[in-house]
Amino acid sequence: MTSRYLVISSDCHAGLPNAEYRDWLDSEHRETFDTYLAERQRMAELAGRGLLNEEFAEEWHRENEEGLRGGWDAARRDKELDADGVAGEVIFPDADAVTAGASAPFGAGLGQTGELDPVLLMAGARAHNRWLAELCAASPDRRAGVAIVPVLHDVDAAVAEITRARQSGLRGGILIPSMWAPYPPYHDARYDPVWAACADLEMPVHVHSGAADREQYGEHVGIYVAEVRWWSMRPLWFLLWAGTFERYDRLRFVVTECGAFWAADLLWTSDIAYDREHAAKKLGSQLTANLAMRPSAYFDRNCGIGASNTRRRELERRYEIGVGNIMWGNDFPHPEGTWPHTREWLRDAFWDIPEDETAQMLGGSAAAMYGFDVAALASVAERIGPTPDELGQRTPEAVAACDRWADPLAAGRPWLA
Amino acid sequence: MTSRYLVISSDCHAGLPNAEYRDWLDSEHRETFDTYLAERQRMAELAGRGLLNEEFAEEWHRENEEGLRGGWDAARRDKELDADGVAGEVIFPDADAVTAGASAPFGAGLGQTGELDPVLLMAGARAHNRWLAELCAASPDRRAGVAIVPVLHDVDAAVAEITRARQSGLRGGILIPSMWAPYPPYHDARYDPVWAACADLEMPVHVHSGAADREQYGEHVGIYVAEVRWWSMRPLWFLLWAGTFERYDRLRFVVTECGAFWAADLLWTSDIAYDREHAAKKLGSQLTANLAMRPSAYFDRNCGIGASNTRRRELERRYEIGVGNIMWGNDFPHPEGTWPHTREWLRDAFWDIPEDETAQMLGGSAAAMYGFDVAALASVAERIGPTPDELGQRTPEAVAACDRWADPLAAGRPWLA
Repeated sequence: MTSRYLVISSDCHAGLPNAEYRDWLDSEHRETFDTYLAERQRMAELAGRGLLNEEFAEEWHRENEEGLRGGWDAARRDKELDADGVAGEVIFPDADAVTAGASAPFGAGLGQTGELDPVLLMAGARAHNRWLAELCAASPDRRAGVAIVPVLHDVDAAVAEITRARQSGLRGGILIPSMWAPYPPYHDARYDPVWAACADLEMPVHVHSGAADREQYGEHVGIYVAEVRWWSMRPLWFLLWAGTFERYDRLRFVVTECGAFWAADLLWTSDIAYDREHAAKKLGSQLTANLAMRPSAYFDRNCGIGASNTRRRELERRYEIGVGNIMWGNDFPHPEGTWPHTREWLRDAFWDIPEDETAQMLGGSAAAMYGFDVAALASVAERIGPTPDELGQRTPEAVAACDRWADPLAAGRPWLA
Repeated sequence: MTSRYLVISSDCHAGLPNAEYRDWLDSEHRETFDTYLAERQRMAELAGRGLLNEEFAEEWHRENEEGLRGGWDAARRDKELDADGVAGEVIFPDADAVTAGASAPFGAGLGQTGELDPVLLMAGARAHNRWLAELCAASPDRRAGVAIVPVLHDVDAAVAEITRARQSGLRGGILIPSMWAPYPPYHDARYDPVWAACADLEMPVHVHSGAADREQYGEHVGIYVAEVRWWSMRPLWFLLWAGTFERYDRLRFVVTECGAFWAADLLWTSDIAYDREHAAKKLGSQLTANLAMRPSAYFDRNCGIGASNTRRRELERRYEIGVGNIMWGNDFPHPEGTWPHTREWLRDAFWDIPEDETAQMLGGSAAAMYGFDVAALASVAERIGPTPDELGQRTPEAVAACDRWADPLAAGRPWLA
C-alpha cells in the first residue's frame, strides 16, 4: 500500500521578471531587447478592453506575492512545491499567466509562432534555456526543465540547441511552437532531424496551450477559450498520421495544459478510421500507409498528456485515455492551476480513484516520461507527499465508491473489443 | 405508446450528375462550365494516389446502381427512403460522396470555400437551388431542401438568394461555407443581414462537414479525417460567443454530419468559462459581454446537430448534449450513412433507448427545426416507419436495460448542478 504519493507536476512554469532576462541574452541582442521591452509595456497599457479581470489580477498578486517569487527564485520555489505536496516538476516558460511579467524574451515562450523574427526568437530561447538550466541545477532531482526550441525556421540550429540544452542539464525535453505557419506543417520531412535528435537524446517534444488563431477572434475572448486547446493538440495528429511515431519509435510527444478530456474521442475516431470501420471504407490505402499499428497504440507508446488540473470528467474517462498516459500537474504558479491549494483539489478529484491508478497519474507516468530518479525523490515524497488518507481514499464511502469503476475498467477502450 | 416512428433524416443529399447541371445554369455561364467540367475530369484522372479505395467505389456503385439514381430522380428517391423507413428528409447538395459525380457546379457544394470565384459560385449555387426546388416540389411534405448560399463575398446578393430560395419552396434553410477565408470571420457584423434574413424567413443556417485546411495535409488523408469535423463545427462558437444568438433569438444554426460526440464537452467547457469557474476567473468582462445566458442555453434555443449516423457513444451522452438537439440522419445516398440498411443500424443503436427519446431524435427534433407538417407526414410514417418492436425496444432485455439511463438522466448536465 502507498504511504505517501510521489507527486510530479507535469506542468509548471518558471521565468525571470521580464527585464532580468537582459543579462542572459547574448550581448548583441541587448539593445534590441530594451526596445522590445519598452514597446511591450506600451502595448500592455493600450490593451485592457475587458480582456483581463483587473480586480482578480490585483488580488492574485497581492495574496500570493511571496509565493509568486517562486516563479524564478529556487528556494522559494521548493518551499511552494513542498507546501503543495509536489516532489518533482516539469518546467515550461512564462511564470506570469496574468500580466505576462515573467515571459521568455522576444515572444519565445508559450505563445511562440512562426511569424516572429527567427534570430530574436532563438536568442530569447537560448537566454531562457541558460537561465532555466541554472534554476534546475539548484534541485536537480526535483526539476526537469523544458528547453524552448524554435524548430521552424532553421532545423540545424534547432538540433544544435537541443543538444546544447540536454548537455546543460535540461532533461525535460523541448517546447516547440504549436502553430507552424508560415513554415511547412509538422508532417514535413524537413523536421525529421529534430525528431531524430529528440529520440536519441530522450528529450520529449512538447506543445503547450497558448498559441491560437488570434487574428480571427476580434475582441471575442470566448472564441479563444473555445478553441485554444485545439491549436496545441493539432500537431499530435499531424505527427501520428504521417507515421512519425512509426519512424521514431523512441520519440516521445506530450500535449500539455490542453486538458485530457478530448483524448478518448480522438483515439476512438482515429482507431475506427484506421480499422476502416464503415465511414472510412471508401478511403484508399494512403490512410494507413505510414502506420503499422492503430493510432491508439502509438499514443500509448509515444505520447503523453500533461493534463494539469485533471478533472473528474477526465478521470471518469481514464481507461479510454489510458491511465499511463495521464500526467497530472499543478500549473504552478499560474492561477488556472491548483497551486496553492493542490491538496484540496486532489482530494476533490481523486477521493475514489484506486490508489495504484492515483499513483500512476500523480507521478508514475511523469517519472517514466521524464526519467525522474524515483529513488532519489523518495525522501522528498516521504516528507511532503499527500497520503491516501489525506485524499480521503480510505474512508468507507470511498472504498465503496470504487465499485463504480469495475465496468469502465472491464470495458477499456470498447471500440477495440 | 408509439406505433411507428416518424423518421426524418436531417442529412440527405441530392445532386444532378455533373454534366446535367448545364441546363440549370444561366446561359452566360455554360461555356465556362464546359471548361470547368473538362478540367475537373482531368484532375480526377490525375488524382488517385491511394486516396480512394477503388475496389470499394466500384462495388458500391455496382451494388447500388438503381438506388443511387435516387440522388436526383424523385420517384426512385421516395422508393429508397420508404425502404429505409424515412418519411421526411433535409436535403444538402452533392449526391455522390465517392467519385464526386453529382456535385453542385463550380465547387458550390459541401466543400465550398472563400477562395473560389464569387460569380461562378453564386451561379453554381443558383443552378443547384433551382433544380432542388423542383425536386422538392415532387414530394413537398417529405422534402426540406437546403439552399446553397455563398454568403462571404456579397452579403446583399446572399440575402437576395435566401429570399428567392425561400419563395421557391426551399424551406430547409441555407448552407454556408464552413470556412470563411479570405473574408472576415462569422463574428463580423458584415454578415448580420444574412442572420437577420434567415431568422425572419425561418431558414436554419447550416454548416456541413467537407471543407478543411487541406493544403496543410500533404498526402496524409488521416490528418483530414482527424480534423475535418472541427472545421465545420467552428462557426458555431464564433457565432455563439459573438452574441449572434442573443441578437437574433429566432436564428437557428445547425452543424451537420460532424457527429454529436463533441457537443457535450463543448458545452461543458463553454459553460464553465461563462460561469468563470476557476481557470476563467482571470478573464475580463468582455468574455460574457455579448451573452445574457450560458452558452448551453443558446445551444438549446438556437442550435441543432445534424447527427447523421448517431452512434452508441453519442447516445450515451444525449442528456448532456440535449435529446432535443440531436437530429439523426441516414446521409442518403452516401456510403458513410446508414442507407440502405437504416433499419439494422437503428436497431443496433436505439434498441434500449426510451421510446419518447427515440421519437425525438429520429424525427421530433427535426420536425420542429424544419417545420415539417407532422400531420401530413403521419400517413407516410404509418406506412413505412419502423416500429419499436422492429428496433428491439420491447424485448424484456431492452426494457430491463433502460434502467441504466436513470442516473445520467438525473445528472443532466452535471456541471450546471
